[in-house]
Amino acid sequence: MKKVNIAIVGATGLVGRTFLQVLEERNFPIENLKLFASEKSKGKEIIFRNKTYKIEALNEKSFENCHIALFSGGSSVSKVFASIAAKSGCIVIDNSSAWRRNEDVPLVVPEVNPEDIARHKGIIANPNCNVIPLVVVFNPIHKKYKIKRVVVSTYQSISGAGQKGIDKLNNEIQGIKTSDKHKIFSNIMFHPIEPNENITNEEAKLHFEPCKIMHTPDLKITSTCVRLPFFACHCEAVNIETEYPFELSEVRALLMNSPGIKILDDLANEDYPTPEIVAGKDEVYVGRIRRDDTIPNGLNLWVVSDNIRKGAATNAIQIAEIILDKYL
Amino acid sequence: MKKVNIAIVGATGLVGRTFLQVLEERNFPIENLKLFASEKSKGKEIIFRNKTYKIEALNEKSFENCHIALFSGGSSVSKVFASIAAKSGCIVIDNSSAWRRNEDVPLVVPEVNPEDIARHKGIIANPNCNVIPLVVVFNPIHKKYKIKRVVVSTYQSISGAGQKGIDKLNNEIQGIKTSDKHKIFSNIMFHPIEPNENITNEEAKLHFEPCKIMHTPDLKITSTCVRLPFFACHCEAVNIETEYPFELSEVRALLMNSPGIKILDDLANEDYPTPEIVAGKDEVYVGRIRRDDTIPNGLNLWVVSDNIRKGAATNAIQIAEIILDKYL
Repeated sequence: MKKVNIAIVGATGLVGRTFLQVLEERNFPIENLKLFASEKSKGKEIIFRNKTYKIEALNEKSFENCHIALFSGGSSVSKVFASIAAKSGCIVIDNSSAWRRNEDVPLVVPEVNPEDIARHKGIIANPNCNVIPLVVVFNPIHKKYKIKRVVVSTYQSISGAGQKGIDKLNNEIQGIKTSDKHKIFSNIMFHPIEPNENITNEEAKLHFEPCKIMHTPDLKITSTCVRLPFFACHCEAVNIETEYPFELSEVRALLMNSPGIKILDDLANEDYPTPEIVAGKDEVYVGRIRRDDTIPNGLNLWVVSDNIRKGAATNAIQIAEIILDKYL
Repeated sequence: MKKVNIAIVGATGLVGRTFLQVLEERNFPIENLKLFASEKSKGKEIIFRNKTYKIEALNEKSFENCHIALFSGGSSVSKVFASIAAKSGCIVIDNSSAWRRNEDVPLVVPEVNPEDIARHKGIIANPNCNVIPLVVVFNPIHKKYKIKRVVVSTYQSISGAGQKGIDKLNNEIQGIKTSDKHKIFSNIMFHPIEPNENITNEEAKLHFEPCKIMHTPDLKITSTCVRLPFFACHCEAVNIETEYPFELSEVRALLMNSPGIKILDDLANEDYPTPEIVAGKDEVYVGRIRRDDTIPNGLNLWVVSDNIRKGAATNAIQIAEIILDKYL
């Protein structure tokens, strides 16, 4: 069995640590492992498969002899070092938003567009954590019924803001205030504004990325993205209008047989996906499957997934597995 | 100035206590006050305007000589005792869902349909706590641009489940589990299922009640209603399709000049309504006013209101003020 040299950038962060956990769980064949983080983490030790690794700071030569680099060190780090890694012959899977809109960079969800990996030029982008579960669900519905328009409202875990977000919620529970304008405990927050737009940067990602992944430039999406006091998981209330008519039972069977999806939908017995149930899982959970009678072909769904796993680390490592299998 | 005899049913509950607070704040002219609650609260004492009142249990004669009764003791109590009160010549303002669909019972939001009070036959229903802020916002938009369809996703405080809900969240924060299937801390819950439907009872209210209040049987509403770990306020992500075109600046000016609405909308400066900001307020707050470009006349709004005040107690007392002014 071939083994590869792996680099992780942002290894001390929430997604970085989950990269390591998922690599271990999935028995990813690693020859050499290098862990990178910011200067202030340099020298910290992390144990992986009973071996101790020292965190290194990045430099121009960090990616020599590396096959695959998993980046989750923020956009500014990715902008500089993903190119450096790619030039070293390493394939980058980047979890930041830095490269997602670049035409030379495929944006990949393995259940949806694995074939796009083939046209990479050294960098593959991992989509936004809301977008990944949405396209896993949209793709089979679109192929069978053609999605015309989607209205999405998100219910997002503060873990989307990383360890800092989790610390903020924990502190506020204990009555410790932060300098932020809004608290998250018993409250909501919106993401920062998208430059030159009147929507948040999260909403901008949600409107753009599904169309690139699914190759559906005409798919229309509007959204309201909201951060909430959860430690884990993103939930999405999804209202879909399709071109072609459907039977609810067909939609349910379709989703049940689609890759990466688990159905939990029995409202009478209080069975529906919640952050508590989905935290730590890799599947996208779907519940509240019901017709929207206000339009001819209307469908309402409730979608929940673990934003740090399938929404970030697991999706990136699924991409790495395809690279290992087909392109190395 | 005329003074009236007031009864409060469910006086020890979250809404009941807020009835008293709002009556005091608004200097409601009360001659005699009677406070009712369940048998187990009988004899408890409540102080109002420096006078101590003993909680009484309800009986057939409880409403004799009473002018206005504010009910918030649950549907089963309202079903029995609202009729008894009305037969005694008392005007009931009922905060439960028991009478809302009854054709002889007006469902009233003072900013929208105060004239419906005139046709009461002894009982007036106070609408659902999500519906009140929605129709305050829908009404001016509908009058000017005609609303065709609305997609609503709610973000609801657990205080909607009363003191029991607040206790549940407080307990779970401290690691104390309840016997409920789902926790609310760091999690979501749906409301109970509506009998013979595949939606929750909250969603059923949200689809029906605005049409009755606004006299718009053709207004189409679909929704997903979700309970969240907030102590106060309901938030709503609202997607509206209008018949006639609008300018965003016109919509903003229209809402700013409509009764009961406050605008807080400057995303660049992180100014938007949150539960923290709106808790304790009587106005319906609107932010995130933006066009939805996926349809010709699409509008997205973020609506927040205090579900115990404008969503329940304040609305009921505004109705009582109109009765006092015009009908007693």
